[in-house]
Amino acid sequence: MTSQSTEAPAEAFTCALAVRWSDQDLNGHVNNARVLTLIEEARVQADIAWSGSGKAGVGGRVVRSLTVEFDRAVHYGSGVRATVWVGRIGRTSYTICHTLEQQGQRCVYAECVMVNLDAKSGRPSELDLETREALTRQQAS
Amino acid sequence: MTSQSTEAPAEAFTCALAVRWSDQDLNGHVNNARVLTLIEEARVQADIAWSGSGKAGVGGRVVRSLTVEFDRAVHYGSGVRATVWVGRIGRTSYTICHTLEQQGQRCVYAECVMVNLDAKSGRPSELDLETREALTRQQAS
Amino acid sequence: MTSQSTEAPAEAFTCALAVRWSDQDLNGHVNNARVLTLIEEARVQADIAWSGSGKAGVGGRVVRSLTVEFDRAVHYGSGVRATVWVGRIGRTSYTICHTLEQQGQRCVYAECVMVNLDAKSGRPSELDLETREALTRQQAS
Amino acid sequence: MTSQSTEAPAEAFTCALAVRWSDQDLNGHVNNARVLTLIEEARVQADIAWSGSGKAGVGGRVVRSLTVEFDRAVHYGSGVRATVWVGRIGRTSYTICHTLEQQGQRCVYAECVMVNLDAKSGRPSELDLETREALTRQQAS
Repeated sequence: MTSQSTEAPAEAFTCALAVRWSDQDLNGHVNNARVLTLIEEARVQADIAWSGSGKAGVGGRVVRSLTVEFDRAVHYGSGVRATVWVGRIGRTSYTICHTLEQQGQRCVYAECVMVNLDAKSGRPSELDLETREALTRQQAS
Repeated sequence: MTSQSTEAPAEAFTCALAVRWSDQDLNGHVNNARVLTLIEEARVQADIAWSGSGKAGVGGRVVRSLTVEFDRAVHYGSGVRATVWVGRIGRTSYTICHTLEQQGQRCVYAECVMVNLDAKSGRPSELDLETREALTRQQAS
Repeated sequence: MTSQSTEAPAEAFTCALAVRWSDQDLNGHVNNARVLTLIEEARVQADIAWSGSGKAGVGGRVVRSLTVEFDRAVHYGSGVRATVWVGRIGRTSYTICHTLEQQGQRCVYAECVMVNLDAKSGRPSELDLETREALTRQQAS
Repeated sequence: MTSQSTEAPAEAFTCALAVRWSDQDLNGHVNNARVLTLIEEARVQADIAWSGSGKAGVGGRVVRSLTVEFDRAVHYGSGVRATVWVGRIGRTSYTICHTLEQQGQRCVYAECVMVNLDAKSGRPSELDLETREALTRQQAS
């Protein structure tokens, strides 16, 4: 998928997520678009934890691309463990890596490229030093 | 992203999709996971059209991976035009390519690898001849 | 259900809504919470039409209560016709009435009591004259 | 709202529900249709607990009507405590009562009338004795 490792660093952020009955689609497992909502929830919780402020980091960042591998279906009836870490850090963008596990088995690996936008122009703009340092602390070594 | 063309063939399936107010997230544009729901809706409608039966093709196919590029935010207030076609056709899997356009501009390009599963074993199984032929008719030339 | 008529006035706002495959739940019909999303979409579209501004009316209004009767399941595969009108108009609140029809049959009747909130205190506040007049024009006679 | 008590019996089923960032709408609180999804999740979990089988009760029951009072907005950032009990038990239908609390304050009270359908005719059919007894055990006294 990419040149970066798909293995979480030992100290990566993790959280428990609850699957809802409504997350299932007609096929009887969690719908793939809904998996992305779980991934998003994990990323928001990681962002809040990393920011140290109890709030999600300031805006200005949007999802530029997503790559998701579905190794196993996620099912209703037991919880999900999400793991989140930082992959590549670029000049104006960075990659957040996520896994979802259920009953000890990896179900999903997802990479999300976030791009930093200038509030005025709406164009990609350089990550500031503070953000870069905060991301580097969460990066897979 | 991939070796295949991201341009739709001239005769690709297209359909109009309505954006809902509820598709927006706190950032004021259509949420990226909800974009995947729009992509799914386009794929289901293409599948129904391609099957010629008025119903979605028989099951046994699951999403194995997703790759999505968000070029522009999708907004509430005007419709979306979706285009769907078949990319690569493999032995047990195939790639569905999708674009979403709004007001004449491409907002999203998404590739979805579908894998054919054996109903009993749940393992990847070879596409049957009928499916392969149906997919080939929708393939970018 | 209430003392007001559940019949739409002749000149009520109507719009077409598209059902998505993903609106279905495991029971094979549109999920009842998702029906509320369709009702909301109809209400937002009515609000935009009534405001005459191309935008939803100014904020400050929240849903205070909902009453929904499900007469028939809504299914994927054909469109829905929504009808929206104003029921009771009170001092600080008013009732929006909605129906959803599919294939000529009423599936859902929903009443939604909206309350006007004061921006500062967050408490119910009197409807201003302009809003009251705009609502009265849409009221069932 | 109804003649039945809106107070949960002491021994009512309760469960913790997690709010997701994506449950919020543009207004910055949990969307009212999404509140219904939380209510549904609580009801499914109660049904699983009451059935004693680890699975939701057998099908054939559909939501006939919903009445929801939104006393306070539900917010992202802290969990929700749901309480579920049985209200009225009729010949072919029964009422499930729910509350959602956040930070010790009641935010939502919802009643849901479920009707038992005959699998063949799809028409309301009498609750069987086993179901009636199971419901009676969960009823507010």
